[in-house]
Amino acid sequence: MSKYTIGIDYGTLSGRAVLVDVATGGQIASATFDYPHGVMDEALPSGKKLGHDWALQHPQDYVDVLTHTIPKILKDSGISPEDVIGLGTDFTACTVLPVKADGTPLCMLPEFSDNPNAYVKLWKHHAAQDKANRLNEIAANRGEKWLKNYGGKISSEWLFPKLWQILDEAPEVYTAMDHFVEAADWIVWQMTGVQTRNSCCAGYKAIYNKATGYPDPDFFKALDPRLENVIAEKLSCPVTSLGEKAGGLTSQMAARLGLKTGTAVCIGNVDAHVCVPAVGIDGPGKMLAIIGTSTCHMMMGTQERQVPGMCGVVQDGIMPGFPGYEAGQSCVGDHFAWFVDNCCPSEYREAAKAVNMGIHEYLTGLAARQKPGEHGLLALDWWNGNRSVLVDVDLTGMMLGMTLQTKPEDMYRALLEATAYGTRMIVENYREHEVAVDAFYASGGISQKNPLMMQIYADVLNMDIKIAGAAQGPALGSAIFAAVAAGKDAGGYDDVFTAARAMGQVKDLVYKPIAANVAVYNKLFAEYRTLHDHFGRGANDVMKRLKELKKHVTQ
Amino acid sequence: MSKYTIGIDYGTLSGRAVLVDVATGGQIASATFDYPHGVMDEALPSGKKLGHDWALQHPQDYVDVLTHTIPKILKDSGISPEDVIGLGTDFTACTVLPVKADGTPLCMLPEFSDNPNAYVKLWKHHAAQDKANRLNEIAANRGEKWLKNYGGKISSEWLFPKLWQILDEAPEVYTAMDHFVEAADWIVWQMTGVQTRNSCCAGYKAIYNKATGYPDPDFFKALDPRLENVIAEKLSCPVTSLGEKAGGLTSQMAARLGLKTGTAVCIGNVDAHVCVPAVGIDGPGKMLAIIGTSTCHMMMGTQERQVPGMCGVVQDGIMPGFPGYEAGQSCVGDHFAWFVDNCCPSEYREAAKAVNMGIHEYLTGLAARQKPGEHGLLALDWWNGNRSVLVDVDLTGMMLGMTLQTKPEDMYRALLEATAYGTRMIVENYREHEVAVDAFYASGGISQKNPLMMQIYADVLNMDIKIAGAAQGPALGSAIFAAVAAGKDAGGYDDVFTAARAMGQVKDLVYKPIAANVAVYNKLFAEYRTLHDHFGRGANDVMKRLKELKKHVTQ
Repeated sequence: MSKYTIGIDYGTLSGRAVLVDVATGGQIASATFDYPHGVMDEALPSGKKLGHDWALQHPQDYVDVLTHTIPKILKDSGISPEDVIGLGTDFTACTVLPVKADGTPLCMLPEFSDNPNAYVKLWKHHAAQDKANRLNEIAANRGEKWLKNYGGKISSEWLFPKLWQILDEAPEVYTAMDHFVEAADWIVWQMTGVQTRNSCCAGYKAIYNKATGYPDPDFFKALDPRLENVIAEKLSCPVTSLGEKAGGLTSQMAARLGLKTGTAVCIGNVDAHVCVPAVGIDGPGKMLAIIGTSTCHMMMGTQERQVPGMCGVVQDGIMPGFPGYEAGQSCVGDHFAWFVDNCCPSEYREAAKAVNMGIHEYLTGLAARQKPGEHGLLALDWWNGNRSVLVDVDLTGMMLGMTLQTKPEDMYRALLEATAYGTRMIVENYREHEVAVDAFYASGGISQKNPLMMQIYADVLNMDIKIAGAAQGPALGSAIFAAVAAGKDAGGYDDVFTAARAMGQVKDLVYKPIAANVAVYNKLFAEYRTLHDHFGRGANDVMKRLKELKKHVTQ
Repeated sequence: MSKYTIGIDYGTLSGRAVLVDVATGGQIASATFDYPHGVMDEALPSGKKLGHDWALQHPQDYVDVLTHTIPKILKDSGISPEDVIGLGTDFTACTVLPVKADGTPLCMLPEFSDNPNAYVKLWKHHAAQDKANRLNEIAANRGEKWLKNYGGKISSEWLFPKLWQILDEAPEVYTAMDHFVEAADWIVWQMTGVQTRNSCCAGYKAIYNKATGYPDPDFFKALDPRLENVIAEKLSCPVTSLGEKAGGLTSQMAARLGLKTGTAVCIGNVDAHVCVPAVGIDGPGKMLAIIGTSTCHMMMGTQERQVPGMCGVVQDGIMPGFPGYEAGQSCVGDHFAWFVDNCCPSEYREAAKAVNMGIHEYLTGLAARQKPGEHGLLALDWWNGNRSVLVDVDLTGMMLGMTLQTKPEDMYRALLEATAYGTRMIVENYREHEVAVDAFYASGGISQKNPLMMQIYADVLNMDIKIAGAAQGPALGSAIFAAVAAGKDAGGYDDVFTAARAMGQVKDLVYKPIAANVAVYNKLFAEYRTLHDHFGRGANDVMKRLKELKKHVTQ
């Protein structure tokens, strides 16, 4: 008798659930539910206005995802709840909320329902930038060793800047909360009645290190004396490794979802990290690039090394037993979207329409006719700053080589290539710091839709590019971890490596480097690197000065 | 009784004549005639194919301009031929043709009518680039002193590369020609029956120096032994200063044109240079920028100095008695045309249409709302290489500072500004080589149509910008020189300075620098200069390497 698990992926605007065959990873059914409150970035449900750069969510939406999608996939598939052996979830992160000791979100209490700081702060809530700046300054001045685990900088998107903002702006909320929890952990708590804190969120977003724990009270005291005991007071829940079982489904939740009471529920996870087993990666040195508007690069290593410019290294942060490395490019698909919105002539729009193609597909088609080096252009992919390896939001884009013969498809291709060079910088940076990168996998929308870009990546990296086989990578990854939480005796697996090998999905298609292209791209990458270092490492800080001037003249 | 002169401006595609009041410079009538043969860049009239980069014209077209336009302006104005005291012409240059001793173009002889090398080589005939390269190499190796009078490089557009091409490819044409003449001088010869060679063409295009003459026979021998006596054999006509009378209209030509026999005809001139008196410039230190698809910068100095990167310095090259300096930007309006052709989204096209504006006007309107520095961008205006001050056709365009918020109008404005920075480089380069630039005038289409650009030039240069008052600057300039050829006794002027003051036209509108803008542009120009020198003076020759690679991969 086949066994099944359910993986639920909590995105920015919706949650989606998939029902998966535990033996093969094959998807049997799926359902999506849009969050009724969506992203609240202008006002609370009461109409109360939010400040600039705020982005909130409502936790009720997360529970509604479960009650709307799980009954539907059970019904659509006709699978018996008896054969569903586990549930796994992944979430955007750092998406955090203040709760009472019993898990009740503060925003659900009448006295806090009109208080913005009582709501879920979504990952892209950027209103705590001043706190992040101050935190980084103090950490650097104190020589905090953990800073290097995050490439030298803590992001405003992460847990402590967001928590500090609450303390600063709404001390009553800070005082009233018993825990400050990741939504990833909160939804697991709702299903199992057990509070957990997963090692991925804790490690990447809350400065937790398996060997050394959280930063010292002295450090938090230096931020604000009221934060001295923040860990004991608001983050007291111990950290659990990925793949562990958080608990069994409560009878109440089981009844609402149509599943068996006690069905194994995996501890929480993060949407990017959970994709790694979904492509069958089962050990270190295999990088997964999740390519969308931006790119996340996930990889396990053999030892925890401090690599400058990465987003973080966390023991057990991707799979148990290995340090998980994360790096990122802040602007990938966003470049191409910007280009077609701002630089694409009407003739191209009309020509694309005439052949019934999307504009990206049309431009890619024209760009695909060129040989590497033919357009004579080179770009720095910094339209949204640079995350890895320079960690500098104040860098901006550059392109050179334009002549009166330069065409839109030339510039489009140059932007595709620039993101590939950015990825190679990350790969080379790891290698230069003794972290091996032996294989390369790609998932995310662009990896599925743009063969030219994938071939360019293969040629620029001089590596085979394997492509994710599942359309819903994160949900499949969650289903894999669910099978591990269920365990072998229940029909699942005893470890995530075995589960990944059995259930992970890659396409048969592999993009292989073409030697002639590799030779040209080696030359072009050398040029990219020279410009990257010139403008990115202080030889000419013109980009920063232009940004400063822009701020100054528009004040 | 008022007196009148006629100025005829020979452009690339047509000739235009204006009838002008000698007292005021006011235009009474004008007429244009399109060359029937246009630019022959694909085939001869016989159908014979031309090579890559060829650009020829037919000399009959130049005579047809006279016979079609002059009778028309006389008729339209009702002015009596008795009151027309002079004729002046200006021409594109270096536009050259091989002729017999009596002035008959070789291409008009049956035995040469199917020989491309017998036709007029238009200024933009670029098929002699290999000859120019070789010439520059040999001149540099020999340490020829005159090379510095041309910023260190002779252009493939100039006389000797074109003549050498004839010798090399069609020695029978070379042998058959008695003279190799500028079209500017040939048309004067047709009108007067007198062969002359004007100091402007000779100086800027044929390496003639008033003090030292042409290069030595030794130099020409080093190019090709057959060229040793090229000056004596093919350029024997003495050089005459601008403003001199070439002769009187022949009775035959007078009859065809409806003018008096003996009407004074001025020696030939060049379209850019003749614009200087047309804006009333009457002495040194006053720069005229003729801003179109590209820009020419004309200025008289007090002493002949060798300024690196200029196009040339020629004694009497603009007005008699002063060294005339020429510099150039190879891509100005061409940038903006490229931008709207290749980077302008359909929404902008539609919005412009909806308000009944041209796309340039619409983009300029949006750009005009910004403060200097607001868009955060900086560009190098090298889409067509750099003429002055780097003299490097292999440089290419660059833009930096782009973010996901960058809009088309931002990039458009950045390109406008880049051309202003390019002009400031030229101005500062003169000043650094002890050639004063005290005043700035602008003519050409863009100067008339784009107030934003002119204000940016005023702010970037921190100088008043005076704008040409005549729509047809070159034709007015020719009419001014015609009044000098006629002389005071006939109702004209005895010198071109007096004539320029009386007849030159500027608008009342003067663009004045705005102090706040000047301060910002000083900062931005400093950034431009750093990038200009970094990419243009060898610190990083990435642009050239990309061009090389492009050539290599597309071979």
